[in-house]
Amino acid sequence: MSTSSIPARPRMTSQDYQAFDALFALSSSIGSTDAGGLHRLTASAADKQMRDAFCLWLKQQGFSVHVDEIGNIFGLMTLVEGAPWILCGSHLDSQPQGGRFDGAYGVTGAAATIAALVRQLSEKPARNLAVVNWTNEEGARFQPSLTGSSVFTGALSLKHALACEDAEGVTLQAALRSIGYDGNALPPLPLAAYLELHVEQGPHLEQQQKQIGVVTETWAALKWQVTFRGEQNHTGPALMSRRRDALLAAALTIVAVRAEADRHGEVLHTSVGRLETAPNSPNVVTREATLFIEFRSVDEALLQQLRDSFSQQMQSIAQQTATDVSLDRAQFRPRQQLDNSLSQLALAQAEKLGFSAMPMRSVAGHDAISLSYHCPSALLFVPSVNGLSHNEREFTAEQDLHRGLDVLMAMLSELSLAPEAAE
Amino acid sequence: MSTSSIPARPRMTSQDYQAFDALFALSSSIGSTDAGGLHRLTASAADKQMRDAFCLWLKQQGFSVHVDEIGNIFGLMTLVEGAPWILCGSHLDSQPQGGRFDGAYGVTGAAATIAALVRQLSEKPARNLAVVNWTNEEGARFQPSLTGSSVFTGALSLKHALACEDAEGVTLQAALRSIGYDGNALPPLPLAAYLELHVEQGPHLEQQQKQIGVVTETWAALKWQVTFRGEQNHTGPALMSRRRDALLAAALTIVAVRAEADRHGEVLHTSVGRLETAPNSPNVVTREATLFIEFRSVDEALLQQLRDSFSQQMQSIAQQTATDVSLDRAQFRPRQQLDNSLSQLALAQAEKLGFSAMPMRSVAGHDAISLSYHCPSALLFVPSVNGLSHNEREFTAEQDLHRGLDVLMAMLSELSLAPEAAE
Repeated sequence: MSTSSIPARPRMTSQDYQAFDALFALSSSIGSTDAGGLHRLTASAADKQMRDAFCLWLKQQGFSVHVDEIGNIFGLMTLVEGAPWILCGSHLDSQPQGGRFDGAYGVTGAAATIAALVRQLSEKPARNLAVVNWTNEEGARFQPSLTGSSVFTGALSLKHALACEDAEGVTLQAALRSIGYDGNALPPLPLAAYLELHVEQGPHLEQQQKQIGVVTETWAALKWQVTFRGEQNHTGPALMSRRRDALLAAALTIVAVRAEADRHGEVLHTSVGRLETAPNSPNVVTREATLFIEFRSVDEALLQQLRDSFSQQMQSIAQQTATDVSLDRAQFRPRQQLDNSLSQLALAQAEKLGFSAMPMRSVAGHDAISLSYHCPSALLFVPSVNGLSHNEREFTAEQDLHRGLDVLMAMLSELSLAPEAAE
Repeated sequence: MSTSSIPARPRMTSQDYQAFDALFALSSSIGSTDAGGLHRLTASAADKQMRDAFCLWLKQQGFSVHVDEIGNIFGLMTLVEGAPWILCGSHLDSQPQGGRFDGAYGVTGAAATIAALVRQLSEKPARNLAVVNWTNEEGARFQPSLTGSSVFTGALSLKHALACEDAEGVTLQAALRSIGYDGNALPPLPLAAYLELHVEQGPHLEQQQKQIGVVTETWAALKWQVTFRGEQNHTGPALMSRRRDALLAAALTIVAVRAEADRHGEVLHTSVGRLETAPNSPNVVTREATLFIEFRSVDEALLQQLRDSFSQQMQSIAQQTATDVSLDRAQFRPRQQLDNSLSQLALAQAEKLGFSAMPMRSVAGHDAISLSYHCPSALLFVPSVNGLSHNEREFTAEQDLHRGLDVLMAMLSELSLAPEAAE
């Protein structure tokens, strides 16, 4: 009987799920591919269309909309003048021919959940609520990735971010201007917490038969952009011994990058996802090849060691192929802890809702990682079928999506209605 | 005294060299690159500009100009109604950021030499003379290479050739139409001989200190277009053991292609000059990778053997990387003999002019190879500095260029004025 004086906490109703389903379906339809995926690169026509639809939806639900200078879209729900904010979100951009859940789930889920919460408010909250769409999380069209969230926290300067160029030399600034999303500086937005819902994009929840993953920390990552320079020549008469083939150097490097993963086992993930070559003509020895290399590990010391040993290995490859190699860009993303109190809250609320949940690590970067340097942040995962992501067949069942919303709703309720209890 | 009754044979005069120098300089200036090279892809704006300038030059010199259905430009000098023709030429298209000698030398040299010969005619010739610019010899923008000359001889159907697409999906037909070089069928042009001047693009003349190379035969070539198909996935969380990385498969193949050359020594030249990947995004495991592979050898049996053994090797690579591999296109160009009488004539005339000359093989394909299946054909080389080609720094000294014209003039004189003696 002691709990009867506490008003019932808001919960997602079937109408709330339907509102989410409709918004998510709208997202899935803008930039959709024939195979059921999503192709919605940052500041493309599809991105503009989705942004327009999202802003309209926010206004219809009573959010006040602000677009900042890097194109981040904030949907602000001021509930208590002057109180700190709880921000929830993710990103609406996708990989080329990517999946429709990655990012879009987190933005539409946050928006629908906040709207549902506000509709059900029966007591005055202690926090304001906001949803955000971060610009260019994927890093597909513009590098580096996590652009919008990194500018928000100050980890990346606005000037640097706006000057990033795509493969055609278009700057992010020009691209945002062309779709009308070069906005204005955001007024101060003191954050009490940042919460992000995301699909796992890996196999662990499925393998462990869990419904909710609470990310407690992330792997570290070492990302390199490397260029080999050789000499253009005729692929016919030029003597093999005289060739300075930048594509051969790149190929040897790609093979060596994979060999590192094979050598170190499951603690290291490696890849080369992008390769640019010139002149890329069938009869011409390649003059220049640029590789985008990633090493990801839970073991920072291993990455530090690779930084040296793999540099040496690339020097050997350059020597072997009579090419020159240069490191154009290097980025080290340290292993990062998410906020422990928020993670505990997430696990407790999931359990309370009757869901099976587990703490886990994230290999991929997410906007929540950017935000975790700025304010207490939480990152929640729902299962990905076959762990497949950045793929048109990326899939998460509707029920799993709804469970994520339930946990988010419970956390928002705790944090906004009884913040001291939760924090 | 017995030779006094024979009129003096025409020779290149200093004015003739100057006329050639001017035309060649004009060619070098259209589509020129900052580094002194040439970027003049088939049916580009630069190609149109060069074609226009060339046609104008031909008309000013009294040639009648005909553009055929595949865009080949013929400059016809009818000297004896109904007599067979001697055709000389090469190609005006270049590789991306390629050299200004490759092809352009042969077209401008032939045009200037024929014009000089006709100006000096003191007796009625027995042959008509023509110069030709063959479309898309390089195969840089459209595959296969040697397009125009192969259509002329019937080795490639006009329909197939016009349907070739560039990387953006533009057909050769559309590209030719866009620059106004989709012409009309050429009236019958019975050929007595085809002669081509070209820079060597290899190191042998320089190494042997010879001024003129007479190509007696070509290497055989096996050209493959191969595609590996894997599965798009996230480069972060996707387990290494589950990845199906088409770029890794391509890299292993590039390394294996080079290993074949290393294994067989100088009788085999191998390369991968072009690689197309999708989606080519830093955070995405590559779904699809297409390679353009070349094996060239003087030893046809070796290429036949590689056809089998390397197919098996690619199957192993596909298995190792959990990808699928398909052979999209295969082209076998057999070893080919040039016309022996013409080669002997070339060597004799070079010697008569006081030039050091040698018979040699060509590794690269040339339009003269296409023509050799159709009529007696000769291919003459002048030295390439450092054997460098398909490179902006490709270079041949002016004196070497002029020596080539001298030999061509002597051959044309023999063939057109005293054809029976020469044939």
